Amino acid sequence: MAFADTDLGYNSGMLSEFDLIDQYFTRPPRRKDVAVGIGDDCALLLPEAGSELAISSDMLVEGRHFFPDTDAHALGHKCLAVNLSDLAAMGAEPMAFTLALALPEANPTWLAPFSAGLLELADRHGCELIGGDTTKGPLNICITIFGKIPSGCALHRNAARVGDDIWISGTVGDARLALAAYRGELHLDERTLATAAERMHRPTPRVALGIALRGIAHAAIDISDGLAGDLAHILKRSSVGACLHVDALPAGPMLAAQDQSTRRRFMLAGGDDYELCFTAPAPMRDAVLQAGAASGTPVARVGSIEAAPGLRIVDADGTVLDLKTPSFDHFNSP
Amino acid sequence: MAFADTDLGYNSGMLSEFDLIDQYFTRPPRRKDVAVGIGDDCALLLPEAGSELAISSDMLVEGRHFFPDTDAHALGHKCLAVNLSDLAAMGAEPMAFTLALALPEANPTWLAPFSAGLLELADRHGCELIGGDTTKGPLNICITIFGKIPSGCALHRNAARVGDDIWISGTVGDARLALAAYRGELHLDERTLATAAERMHRPTPRVALGIALRGIAHAAIDISDGLAGDLAHILKRSSVGACLHVDALPAGPMLAAQDQSTRRRFMLAGGDDYELCFTAPAPMRDAVLQAGAASGTPVARVGSIEAAPGLRIVDADGTVLDLKTPSFDHFNSP
Repeated sequence: MAFADTDLGYNSGMLSEFDLIDQYFTRPPRRKDVAVGIGDDCALLLPEAGSELAISSDMLVEGRHFFPDTDAHALGHKCLAVNLSDLAAMGAEPMAFTLALALPEANPTWLAPFSAGLLELADRHGCELIGGDTTKGPLNICITIFGKIPSGCALHRNAARVGDDIWISGTVGDARLALAAYRGELHLDERTLATAAERMHRPTPRVALGIALRGIAHAAIDISDGLAGDLAHILKRSSVGACLHVDALPAGPMLAAQDQSTRRRFMLAGGDDYELCFTAPAPMRDAVLQAGAASGTPVARVGSIEAAPGLRIVDADGTVLDLKTPSFDHFNSP
Repeated sequence: MAFADTDLGYNSGMLSEFDLIDQYFTRPPRRKDVAVGIGDDCALLLPEAGSELAISSDMLVEGRHFFPDTDAHALGHKCLAVNLSDLAAMGAEPMAFTLALALPEANPTWLAPFSAGLLELADRHGCELIGGDTTKGPLNICITIFGKIPSGCALHRNAARVGDDIWISGTVGDARLALAAYRGELHLDERTLATAAERMHRPTPRVALGIALRGIAHAAIDISDGLAGDLAHILKRSSVGACLHVDALPAGPMLAAQDQSTRRRFMLAGGDDYELCFTAPAPMRDAVLQAGAASGTPVARVGSIEAAPGLRIVDADGTVLDLKTPSFDHFNSP
């Protein structure tokens, strides 16, 4: 149902479900390719001739993907950002999304900043909320997002080729640093924590870079569970291996004061950065740098795709390191 | 993420998230218009030229939309059926869906029948599972479904016109009867309960009827929260009123033994039937009957659209009844 049948208000006593949708989530339609938005049995999209539709769903659960006391505005931002990041990793242009929301109560002091954080980011990407569902239940946020790509131009996980360079955007590790501080694994001064936490709570989906990389990059993925683990998905699906230069990785600026082992671990295995990891043929190096510059996104060359299976992590001297780098498990990794 | 980044297995100790997806949810692609299914950052659909894409999301929460001991096979069926029913109400043909699933544990004795119930119904409608997300958390099932409609042929809630007949498919009230028995509001013998419960647990989405009604019906909605409440959505959005003949309503066969007041209340306000309520101009009566016959779906003419706002419910003598018919609230209505 496109935000038409909900059952929250009957029990909240404060705000009916239709008030809730009207007040916090319904706005005048903005895109010409959205024929019907909120309020009918379905939303209707008008796909563009010659384009493919990219679709991704993410479900965020309280206590698992975010702490119960997470700022509602930041949470609204983040739950859309992780979906936009999936579109970015395919090179897709955001169009629209649906929001299914289970809430313990219809609380305006939570809903107002949540919807503001969500819709501000949506507006920045021209991405329209076209429907969804609301219900009472343990806090759970499920967004399904839609983007368009000219036919045949999508960046796939299985498209890495031997000889490709491996690139990543932005910096990695600061989101994991904030998590470590929250968990008491290490201590950060207030300013450092605030800056690192901003990376964790308000990731920047690399949408413009993903689009700019069409026709340049081969394979791409977004780094949600940790660089080593996410790169491994590309390697497995492309039937290739890789060499990654750990000292070439662009460390999050707040990592500087940490020891080498922590820096390396957080860069390789920390999740929640939502940067892009992508591969491109060596003759495309200038084109990649230009795509980064054109989209205002720093890019760094950090390794290469090889025929031998597996991921080899080497230091500046070329020594292969024996690092355990499990994928990041949101609230249960050490 | 299209079923690629999950965090269930790390804690279950029994079944990794990728095993879970491979084993229960991944199958060879079947549709030509699905370019990429499970396994990349996004799924990719290839929309057909001249068609619109209908999209609907529903979130089902344990203890709210279904009892904790609900049979997993039936639950798999139902959570897709309610989404197929939204497509039916727009006249859309099912194409594909995403599944986001929060589970307390990765339990094969639940997952096997759940995925079987889900995928059996999906196969019956040629509807392909193209991605989603799995995570650990309180049981929550969020499906987003995609269907196609030739441009301009969708059935909308706001399209009812004065003079239209009001029709409903199948029968109404038996699902509510089962719920009443589960709640101890009334007693049913074992066979009656089993038959009524089948309506509640395994609703039949009226997809073929919805498609057959293109170009014939004006407005349509599916009956999820109760006929009176759902019809009211059509009336409000079409700026019309209606007269509904309560004694013309096709009662669920298990309602026969109930008193008149219960029958009427369950038919008008009981939810979970997932029949279609639609309007069509009077000259289309034969065409509606033919659409019902062609799709193997009984249809009954139960009222008419009028200019005066509001819903008037009359008995066989034409007397206007004063019935309170709130929309059905899944687990909290009396």
